[in-house]
Amino acid sequence: MAKELTPRSENYSQWYNELVVKADLAEQSAVRGCMVIKPYGYAIWEKMQSILDAEFKKTGVQNAYFPLFIPKSFFSREAEHVAGFAKECAVVTHHRLMNDPDGKGVVVDPEAKLEEELIVRPTSETIIWSVYKNWIKSWRDLPILCNQWCNVVRWEMRTRPFLRTAEFLWQEGHTAHATAQEAEAKANEMVKVYADFARNTLALPVIVGHKSPNERFAGALDTLTIEAMMQDGKALQAGTSHFLGQNFAKSFDVQYADNEGKLQYVWATSWGVSTRLMGALIMAHSDDNGLVLPPKLAPIQVVLVPIYKTEEEFNAVALKLNAIKSELEAKGISVKLDDRDTVRPGFKFAEWEMKGVPVRIALGARDLEAGTVEVARRDTLTKETMPIDGVCDHIESLLGEIQDNIYKKAFDFRAANIRKCDSWEEFKTEIQKGGFLLCHWDGTAETEQAIKDETKATIRCIPVDTCVCEEEGKDIYSGKPSHGRVVFAISY
Amino acid sequence: MAKELTPRSENYSQWYNELVVKADLAEQSAVRGCMVIKPYGYAIWEKMQSILDAEFKKTGVQNAYFPLFIPKSFFSREAEHVAGFAKECAVVTHHRLMNDPDGKGVVVDPEAKLEEELIVRPTSETIIWSVYKNWIKSWRDLPILCNQWCNVVRWEMRTRPFLRTAEFLWQEGHTAHATAQEAEAKANEMVKVYADFARNTLALPVIVGHKSPNERFAGALDTLTIEAMMQDGKALQAGTSHFLGQNFAKSFDVQYADNEGKLQYVWATSWGVSTRLMGALIMAHSDDNGLVLPPKLAPIQVVLVPIYKTEEEFNAVALKLNAIKSELEAKGISVKLDDRDTVRPGFKFAEWEMKGVPVRIALGARDLEAGTVEVARRDTLTKETMPIDGVCDHIESLLGEIQDNIYKKAFDFRAANIRKCDSWEEFKTEIQKGGFLLCHWDGTAETEQAIKDETKATIRCIPVDTCVCEEEGKDIYSGKPSHGRVVFAISY
Repeated sequence: MAKELTPRSENYSQWYNELVVKADLAEQSAVRGCMVIKPYGYAIWEKMQSILDAEFKKTGVQNAYFPLFIPKSFFSREAEHVAGFAKECAVVTHHRLMNDPDGKGVVVDPEAKLEEELIVRPTSETIIWSVYKNWIKSWRDLPILCNQWCNVVRWEMRTRPFLRTAEFLWQEGHTAHATAQEAEAKANEMVKVYADFARNTLALPVIVGHKSPNERFAGALDTLTIEAMMQDGKALQAGTSHFLGQNFAKSFDVQYADNEGKLQYVWATSWGVSTRLMGALIMAHSDDNGLVLPPKLAPIQVVLVPIYKTEEEFNAVALKLNAIKSELEAKGISVKLDDRDTVRPGFKFAEWEMKGVPVRIALGARDLEAGTVEVARRDTLTKETMPIDGVCDHIESLLGEIQDNIYKKAFDFRAANIRKCDSWEEFKTEIQKGGFLLCHWDGTAETEQAIKDETKATIRCIPVDTCVCEEEGKDIYSGKPSHGRVVFAISY
Repeated sequence: MAKELTPRSENYSQWYNELVVKADLAEQSAVRGCMVIKPYGYAIWEKMQSILDAEFKKTGVQNAYFPLFIPKSFFSREAEHVAGFAKECAVVTHHRLMNDPDGKGVVVDPEAKLEEELIVRPTSETIIWSVYKNWIKSWRDLPILCNQWCNVVRWEMRTRPFLRTAEFLWQEGHTAHATAQEAEAKANEMVKVYADFARNTLALPVIVGHKSPNERFAGALDTLTIEAMMQDGKALQAGTSHFLGQNFAKSFDVQYADNEGKLQYVWATSWGVSTRLMGALIMAHSDDNGLVLPPKLAPIQVVLVPIYKTEEEFNAVALKLNAIKSELEAKGISVKLDDRDTVRPGFKFAEWEMKGVPVRIALGARDLEAGTVEVARRDTLTKETMPIDGVCDHIESLLGEIQDNIYKKAFDFRAANIRKCDSWEEFKTEIQKGGFLLCHWDGTAETEQAIKDETKATIRCIPVDTCVCEEEGKDIYSGKPSHGRVVFAISY
């Protein structure tokens, strides 16, 4: 079985695509742009969901479920706000299949045409605000803090597993508030939840900031983002939180009576992260041997591999490994004992390395005699022989150490690839090398567009933490005055 | 606020529809047949998911995710097995919206027609078996035990919240095995998981049995079912588990090399429960005052209501209630302190009764002086004054008692409404009264159909537990020999 990956240095994009398949995370399906998330990949997504979901709930958010389909007319209301509206989305026009009267197979029943076409949700603001209209009468009904975990569809022309797919899984939070201040505070709170999650769980050092008006979500007054750097120096937007003002409330006529009985339009936020986080996780940490998983997200945190020649040896070694397994599990660590007798230890080592299991313990008959085990770390690819006694305590702290080390590595990589740039000539060459450039910007859409047209670089964010640089300067392109630097990069 | 429900005795169906809305569980959306599951309803569904998911995983099942869309041609393969194929389902034919060139609003872009129509999954056997084909080469790849939690769409003409909706949420397990025996054992194992869940968590005394060939899932060799009795005496199918034989393996050419290298078709099962369980839960236990929830599924298990006139009284009472809350929460009990000052206690009592909170504790200034609280049970609608000291221990055991009592009530109701019937004349009148009739059946589809045509009653199952009656007798309709009784009822 050829497990080797194309090295990152040779072809980063191909390395990624191969890794997704060889680590058993996902694969293409028969439906263009739709992926199958395999059990191993889905187990990682489930861990992300469960941690995020608990964080959302701590902020008072409740889950709900809204329809998959949105009537076409709802998009017309939105289109009034959006010039040159064009939406790539899946349109349902009929509701029945029947046997082909002319031969074999199945055809769409032409008599079963819908009166109004339905759109498979690309995002749910419109359907949700049409519902909130019925939920909100007075200030007592506010705030409403709902989230849903669901699938959405955007008919992307060029797709890549996890990063850009026609169907993807995500969560979308939609909140309704009495005041602008409260809504803005909620949008800020949620981007902070995302940033903490990215840093503490995904081991991703993200930059939090505002999107420039050009890059905002359509209809938002402000979009907050978390931006991560991948190993090729490109930026990846890993989550966004929008302050939507009163736009959707006005489109769907959602008003509340304030405590003086006066009708007011409601203020809105929405915020989401998706299976794209899987792409960010893979791209940020993995290496030419395969996946590297932060222990907090690893479905299997420790794999145990017995080394043996005879059945007697196997029995002795397996007995000890089972004892280690029980002790680790009692500490809440997820463990897999790989006792397959159909493949050799070397094959197992390579397979679990490909799948990113953080710690591997190998035990042979001679180790058993010596009272030692071999402990290998996935993140550093180092091994160490140590006494069996106390190995479980060691593993427990080692998992924390690995989590920290993966973050540190990504942090150091970003630090080495983020720099100030004050000359347009320099910018044009530097931006092609990858990484983030901190540059002055005059705040206009024209300049941003011109830079994008010439270099493909966009403003990833106007940072509010990590690398805030409020200082006077001159726009790198136009030379006009600027009050601070922003983050430029080429992005996914 | 008019909270009153139509009594069950007056109009059971209207009682149900009103209850779903008034208990804040779900509501109709702007999309025909698609419901919005509100936070309170969704919290119950989340509890069901989390308990079931853990049970699935104990049996070795892993979660995965497969595409929402199924190419139309996959249905053609299935149609070859199904005479008179006609599927009510949502058909995607286009992939773009654009501004209407002739005026306002949005239209479907006629240039964006798909080459092959896509069907929104009504169930995923076809897409999953097209994927399993790539996963299965040898006996070493088996068994595959996958489940997915997702949404599905069936274009039902007449819909009712939870019971029958165009879009619904469910889980669908799909397993692949080397032998028929192993697949049959899996189908049996999973219906047992469903039955245990229904009995222990939903407090629903279900009957497990086989469907008659007429009522089997299309393409299944055997369908196992759990059947519950609602308060109007009708049956509700609450979950099914199918032994699919080799039908899907043959349609999608899924073969494995056995340990002698010989190619064999793979054996399949599929099994699912859906948000229909919400309907079963509501219909089985609730009363004319609203929802009755088994404590194991109640998002709020205990509600605390302060009774006070002055701010001073409120402070004293709230202090004590907060102490009770902390103590209950330390026991893992979910508690809500309803300290709203905008509504009166009586309003709160009615609201939490409507929402089915199992236990209510009310505390007033006089209680505080006397060192007592009032504890009210939702299931029996009884109240009791008891010392504050030790109330938390009491509540803990009371919740278990309520869970058992709700089951017992449903069990006794079923026992009172299940009876043997040996005469066709009697059958015709008895079946209209509701309840389950245990009758002899000759095993033919013709007899079953004739009985259905005359009375609307169907064979709910050929029981394998609860009321197995293997005995010789004569078919109630045809008079032909029978080897055992089956369960007849009118069903949802």
